Amino acid sequence: MTAALSSNAPKPLLAALCGVRQPVPPIWLMRQAGRYLPEYRAIRAEAPSFLEFCYNPRLAAEATLQPIRRFGFDAAILFSDILVTPHALGQSVSFESGDGPRLQPIESAADYAALREELDWARLEPVFETIERVKANLPAEVALIGFCGAPWTVASYMIAGRGTPDQTPARLFAYRQPDLFAALIDRLADVSAEYLARQFRAGAEAAQIFDSWSGVLPPAEFERWCVKPIERMLARLRASAPRPPIIAFPRGAATRLAEFAALGGLAGVGLDTAVEPAAAAAALPAPLALQGNLDPVALVAGGRALDEGVERALRGFAGRAHIFNLGHGVLPQTPIAHVERLVARVRAG
Amino acid sequence: MTAALSSNAPKPLLAALCGVRQPVPPIWLMRQAGRYLPEYRAIRAEAPSFLEFCYNPRLAAEATLQPIRRFGFDAAILFSDILVTPHALGQSVSFESGDGPRLQPIESAADYAALREELDWARLEPVFETIERVKANLPAEVALIGFCGAPWTVASYMIAGRGTPDQTPARLFAYRQPDLFAALIDRLADVSAEYLARQFRAGAEAAQIFDSWSGVLPPAEFERWCVKPIERMLARLRASAPRPPIIAFPRGAATRLAEFAALGGLAGVGLDTAVEPAAAAAALPAPLALQGNLDPVALVAGGRALDEGVERALRGFAGRAHIFNLGHGVLPQTPIAHVERLVARVRAG
Repeated sequence: MTAALSSNAPKPLLAALCGVRQPVPPIWLMRQAGRYLPEYRAIRAEAPSFLEFCYNPRLAAEATLQPIRRFGFDAAILFSDILVTPHALGQSVSFESGDGPRLQPIESAADYAALREELDWARLEPVFETIERVKANLPAEVALIGFCGAPWTVASYMIAGRGTPDQTPARLFAYRQPDLFAALIDRLADVSAEYLARQFRAGAEAAQIFDSWSGVLPPAEFERWCVKPIERMLARLRASAPRPPIIAFPRGAATRLAEFAALGGLAGVGLDTAVEPAAAAAALPAPLALQGNLDPVALVAGGRALDEGVERALRGFAGRAHIFNLGHGVLPQTPIAHVERLVARVRAG
Repeated sequence: MTAALSSNAPKPLLAALCGVRQPVPPIWLMRQAGRYLPEYRAIRAEAPSFLEFCYNPRLAAEATLQPIRRFGFDAAILFSDILVTPHALGQSVSFESGDGPRLQPIESAADYAALREELDWARLEPVFETIERVKANLPAEVALIGFCGAPWTVASYMIAGRGTPDQTPARLFAYRQPDLFAALIDRLADVSAEYLARQFRAGAEAAQIFDSWSGVLPPAEFERWCVKPIERMLARLRASAPRPPIIAFPRGAATRLAEFAALGGLAGVGLDTAVEPAAAAAALPAPLALQGNLDPVALVAGGRALDEGVERALRGFAGRAHIFNLGHGVLPQTPIAHVERLVARVRAG
């Protein structure tokens, strides 16, 4: 009876993304799968490289499911990487262990012209198979979230060829060659929308667009390279079927958050650690689900810092459809006991 | 006659810091002295290490004066480093070439207890001599700005022992050992205020407090580790003489900027690249001088990006006492011709 009842009830994450405040906020964590889990480290060793791990449906599905089994989160997020899109556009991508991604940087119009126009779907086939495998093994009340990087964030890696402290190479490229950069951004917006559409067709029930580096952009560039491209993606997604809810995470949007959150077609917005929960709850349009925003460093610290952070988020977002999450990804040194405590406290209300 | 007249007129930078809008905004640039200048690279080679360079009054004064001679800026800023305060508290500090600072990290109460209570003034004597030398050689209309790091930013290096992307070590330390961290912050606030007071007595006519890392703090921590310590510094400085104007630069303050700018005792506030000039001009208290905020990457790019950025700042801050500056420091790859063009355009109005 219980099983039958729960399979008919909407999943709490999806209900929140419809703007319906849940008595207990659904919870998942950015980077909830990963190095802080011993079971992840065990299976990670089965693939020779990080990309091969991501493209192995058995391993990627297992990594996606591990945190659900251990913590009972309300959502699983596809285990993959934002750089599979440039990889599927034909750019060389690899991951040096402990040193982040390495790409053959886009430096000229010729480099840009060498990219594919469409994603290489054969390369991405394992991602869709991962989604199908996860979907078949997910508890009934748990939602599956797909994802991709936002055009600006993905472009910043494509141009720098690596992670940088403030994406200076891409900012410089955009100032010097705005038309070429705009062409790259438009292509990324179009292929990323199509990529999410295919994730939905494979079974993803929601998706998050990660604009992890939007905060480094000055106001005019934020509008041009963060807001407009995501608007373009949302417009394309509205025209395709099925149309699951979209969460966007414009990290560092700060004073530009309200403008961003007004984008038509967003179901939820991810809030970073700098956002004051009560202020965001008061300022952002009502049907939008607010996701966030505990400091991942407080989750590492535990104790009073963790308890106070949880309490501030629960209280600040109390009147809204709230999805509990961190303000950035789980850090590798996070103790498992602190995650258990977090989940218990959120569910205790 | 001209010389006599100009020596009686207030220096434009100091007039702006009194809240008086200047017909042409005074201009200086963060990191205006440094590696992008061939004359700097030439003298830098005369000292075996970066710290020895900073502590050599002849070389440091020359580095301070070089950009004034070349570009005719309205202010010189003391050539030094924010890490001379931990160094003068007895912490080991060095600079690896191309790899940033290295400090013996503060990890425990014992490490904290090993610090001096007061700054070692003998170690800082060359800084005051540098100020005297610069002052004796500065054109009459050019103001001399002293500076120090803000307590949070300095503490973040003292705890991590190096630069990090988001100051996770200090954030974690502050969550885990808030009382010990508060003691460190209070000590830094007190000695930094005294350090600025002595810079003023040596001849500095204004000072800037750099909180380069305030943006990584969540709201409650921003209030506790950025706003309150700077408030404490300002209170101590108000009680000492002379009392030149203070500019604070809370980089990444974003939505917290108005709260920060309301601090009693501030003459100016430095604005980072994320700030929309017209919005800041409308939101911040009227007598406060607004300093900023061209993107240093636009200065590297030059051309239309530079011209548009200059125009946006000039237009956005037009109604206010405005000090033209970048939103962060000059980048090493900045072409000198672009700085010349910037100065010419700002002065052309």
